[in-house]
Amino acid sequence: MAILVVGSVAFDSIKSPSGNAERVLGGAASYFALAASNFTQVRTIAVVGDDFTPKEEAVLTSRGVDISGIERVRDGKTFFWAGEYASDNLNEAKTLRTDLNVFQGFDPKIPASWSDTEFLFLANIDPVLQSNVRSKMPQVKLVGGDTMNYWINDHRTALLETIKTIDILLINDAEVKSIADDKSLPRAASKVLKLGPKMLVVKHGEYGATIFFGDGSHPFRAPALPIEEVVDPTGAGDSFAGGFMGYLASQGEVTRESLKRAMFYGGVMGSFAVERFGTERLQHLTREEIDVRFQLFRQLTHLD
Amino acid sequence: MAILVVGSVAFDSIKSPSGNAERVLGGAASYFALAASNFTQVRTIAVVGDDFTPKEEAVLTSRGVDISGIERVRDGKTFFWAGEYASDNLNEAKTLRTDLNVFQGFDPKIPASWSDTEFLFLANIDPVLQSNVRSKMPQVKLVGGDTMNYWINDHRTALLETIKTIDILLINDAEVKSIADDKSLPRAASKVLKLGPKMLVVKHGEYGATIFFGDGSHPFRAPALPIEEVVDPTGAGDSFAGGFMGYLASQGEVTRESLKRAMFYGGVMGSFAVERFGTERLQHLTREEIDVRFQLFRQLTHLD
Repeated sequence: MAILVVGSVAFDSIKSPSGNAERVLGGAASYFALAASNFTQVRTIAVVGDDFTPKEEAVLTSRGVDISGIERVRDGKTFFWAGEYASDNLNEAKTLRTDLNVFQGFDPKIPASWSDTEFLFLANIDPVLQSNVRSKMPQVKLVGGDTMNYWINDHRTALLETIKTIDILLINDAEVKSIADDKSLPRAASKVLKLGPKMLVVKHGEYGATIFFGDGSHPFRAPALPIEEVVDPTGAGDSFAGGFMGYLASQGEVTRESLKRAMFYGGVMGSFAVERFGTERLQHLTREEIDVRFQLFRQLTHLD
Repeated sequence: MAILVVGSVAFDSIKSPSGNAERVLGGAASYFALAASNFTQVRTIAVVGDDFTPKEEAVLTSRGVDISGIERVRDGKTFFWAGEYASDNLNEAKTLRTDLNVFQGFDPKIPASWSDTEFLFLANIDPVLQSNVRSKMPQVKLVGGDTMNYWINDHRTALLETIKTIDILLINDAEVKSIADDKSLPRAASKVLKLGPKMLVVKHGEYGATIFFGDGSHPFRAPALPIEEVVDPTGAGDSFAGGFMGYLASQGEVTRESLKRAMFYGGVMGSFAVERFGTERLQHLTREEIDVRFQLFRQLTHLD
């Protein structure tokens, strides 16, 4: 089944201990779409400016991503972000510059022909926009969502409204603890699950990710790959979400078994994303490479 | 096969967000011995004072631990440590008081009848003492060892000599990075493995542990249990080591398969240790409780 992602498409300039990259294709929706495109048909809603050229379009369309929901603003410029990673903390970027540009007026419109989409991912955008999109798609079978500390701290009321309507929230340790105001991760996870989501995926960076279930069943943990050189951590979480949600959509049904495999595919896509700058590593991945790495994740964790 | 542990036996006073405990039995050798005693016969070398009573002895002997290597210093006092855990960082204790007492003059003596021991664990003590013990036991089949930042920073030369003679080093993330002077864990692990050990077990606290292999084979990762209330983190690493080494000794042979299971048993014992203050939870564990939790660890990580 197809999956619809709503989020940012951006140009990023990134510095890391491995080097730097100038104005490469980025944004949560780009990482998500490229990662998910290995598993199912992806539909993207985003906004870009004139500087988004056929070259960038081709990166997405060559992977089968339907970009007819990407709005172009004439005389506008695409969201631009510049950030830097220090060698002692690859988990967090120092933002050097943020030009929201056309993203500031982002008003997601859902093409009429997409109203049958059953899987939806609300990437990290204003929770009011997330809620708007969600309410226009009552038919969806499964909604995944992301957020960040800015919305948790400064737009808490709107965020809590949105969270109620999300089936699977995918966020990191610090965000879970911040929403719940609790320093114990398992306890914070229980609290967040009482706010509405049926499931919570907590991304631990280099330590992998854990899915907690609102029905009280046992959590499940997927590893991350120990990678000697993380070239660029940008988009690792969005790539995880793309692998996770894309695999679920490809299976059509959401069971404990499909969720466990989705956690592995999420980790696999995150591990590829960080190997090169921007979305480069995701642009030409083969299903065979993905399956080889899936087996590696299995070897990394399975007793037999 | 029996395992010999050399390390500290202590009285600990501990404060944590869950409460406090006064002068409870602690020390690396106590946690290790109690954890390992579920799998195999344990021999302990340590030093205590007059304040170590038949009651404390019974905690160890009732689990079959041979304490004939625990030296008693007349008119001496047992090592005493007081520490406190803050709610926002259960991974690190603030030391309130350290009275080394008889531990200051610790000179490990190996009972003649123990010279055939094939499995040895050198808990966190002065690396010079670790090397002395190691050199007196040329027949051992497998040597595990621990250390801490104090030795890494201030006794580096002695520590590097000791590390050469250890087969499996069991330390935490910060210690690996500190020894290697590298912020990337996988890269730091590779560097540490070039210093001598055949294997390196890195303990990640609530995220579990990873074993890296010097022969270049794939690492293996075991989870930790998401525990809502960690009552007392003291001794979690030593309990992990006890479960890990104890299980290996019980199997007699060290293969990739036995090492993987040992990683799980290590995680299991660490997860029990933190449920109550001091060694309390380890004192009356049954093999059935251990096996039930082992299966829980499997469910937490295995696809099928």
